[in-house]
Amino acid sequence: MASTYSMTRTIEFVETDMAGIVHFTNFYRWMEQAEHGFLRSVGLTVANHLDDGSTIGFPRVSASCRFISPAKFEEQLLVTLQIQRIGVKSVTYEIIFAVGERLVAKGTLKTACCQFVPGQPFESIAIPESYLTKIQDYCQAD
Amino acid sequence: MASTYSMTRTIEFVETDMAGIVHFTNFYRWMEQAEHGFLRSVGLTVANHLDDGSTIGFPRVSASCRFISPAKFEEQLLVTLQIQRIGVKSVTYEIIFAVGERLVAKGTLKTACCQFVPGQPFESIAIPESYLTKIQDYCQAD
Amino acid sequence: MASTYSMTRTIEFVETDMAGIVHFTNFYRWMEQAEHGFLRSVGLTVANHLDDGSTIGFPRVSASCRFISPAKFEEQLLVTLQIQRIGVKSVTYEIIFAVGERLVAKGTLKTACCQFVPGQPFESIAIPESYLTKIQDYCQAD
Amino acid sequence: MASTYSMTRTIEFVETDMAGIVHFTNFYRWMEQAEHGFLRSVGLTVANHLDDGSTIGFPRVSASCRFISPAKFEEQLLVTLQIQRIGVKSVTYEIIFAVGERLVAKGTLKTACCQFVPGQPFESIAIPESYLTKIQDYCQAD
Repeated sequence: MASTYSMTRTIEFVETDMAGIVHFTNFYRWMEQAEHGFLRSVGLTVANHLDDGSTIGFPRVSASCRFISPAKFEEQLLVTLQIQRIGVKSVTYEIIFAVGERLVAKGTLKTACCQFVPGQPFESIAIPESYLTKIQDYCQAD
Repeated sequence: MASTYSMTRTIEFVETDMAGIVHFTNFYRWMEQAEHGFLRSVGLTVANHLDDGSTIGFPRVSASCRFISPAKFEEQLLVTLQIQRIGVKSVTYEIIFAVGERLVAKGTLKTACCQFVPGQPFESIAIPESYLTKIQDYCQAD
Repeated sequence: MASTYSMTRTIEFVETDMAGIVHFTNFYRWMEQAEHGFLRSVGLTVANHLDDGSTIGFPRVSASCRFISPAKFEEQLLVTLQIQRIGVKSVTYEIIFAVGERLVAKGTLKTACCQFVPGQPFESIAIPESYLTKIQDYCQAD
Repeated sequence: MASTYSMTRTIEFVETDMAGIVHFTNFYRWMEQAEHGFLRSVGLTVANHLDDGSTIGFPRVSASCRFISPAKFEEQLLVTLQIQRIGVKSVTYEIIFAVGERLVAKGTLKTACCQFVPGQPFESIAIPESYLTKIQDYCQAD
């Protein structure tokens, strides 16, 4: 599972706080943005509306991040996502944040495949074969 | 229409930016928060799910804010909302932000009453009588 | 002043709300992002640290936005900024949001040139010549 | 260390996403809000400006959260913070999120005491005696 997906973004003013650095909550936004960008890159979407009115999605099970060095306004942040584990019902990603050679933060995001039927609670399901194939093809592409 | 609804909140760290003051986007969050708090205070909700599966809501038509003086971390912000105009299909609010005697910002929020039917575009509707009564009672309470 | 600056962005999941569309507060983030992107494109920055320890910046005087049609998850939003007016101490921008041919929103952002000396209140100043030249060159480039 | 600090908040519309539930990034905002509320409750602040121009603060080392059940618009969320560990240079908090009897999420936040001197990188320092006393008094109050 060596393949990685990456995106670059400029740190925005709104993302800074009065300490003059990126507020830590933004890293969780970017983890999700990288996950969704990755899914799109393999032809999937995190909100897949089916013909029966239900939706297949990947709600978060947990997310953690370790902050190693601060990032600042207008710096170029490289966000690199790698699949850490594909379970029957879950996908776990590792996400690395860097500015040039400097490691900024390191996060882990665990998501569970769920089916949403309007008006009912989420139900955790096995990841559909069509998803698995696309994700696994990606992982073996390297 | 003299009656006002108000709420107080402590400025949070996440709401500041690298200039050491509240980032301007937060004022729009607070305008909406005051609007929804006001609606709850008269027994209404901004997302009213009806038995037929549709929802009555009040999407924003426009929102503007003028920034008069900066607000800082841990200051106590007083947010005061007043109804400026009730139209057939819209409600316009004026919202004043102050820290003690100091005027911080002044905003206007115009919302339109709409009905949401799943899978269809919003449809603008006349504000239901039951809503009007509660809002008007409030306005005349003063 | 016909020249425009534009950027494209994918609507993120975090930017949606329970009505299934982009939450209105995001448009103010994107107005600022377009402003800062424009300033960078002409070799300026919104937070210019001078040798004397002070900073030249452009705090917001006011921001308004009119919401015309909803934008949804994974749509491609085109944000187009145009300078509406350059005053002695202020710059006013108009920002248009569109998804393909569909107009989504239209905003106005007025900023004032200010000097920040640590520990002192902001002071509004005339826009420095070096800034004016770069902005005006841009406007006449068309 | 049994003492806990708690706060209640109404889930706001802006905090929901298109899945109709609270977006997970908000839990990290609330963890920090609870931490800062706790510090204020014992007479401390997370941004303590000293006479020598430096600031004592507590930047985040890491933050993680496990999401157990969804929270929805206008639900009353109870956020309960407890100190898990006080180190020489760090404080670790556990934060529990609940709606009534229903457990919603469980987070951990590790912060490091740092001194900020303008223009220099942060420096990790031992937690000052005056801070330790107030925090420990609180923990033993139970």
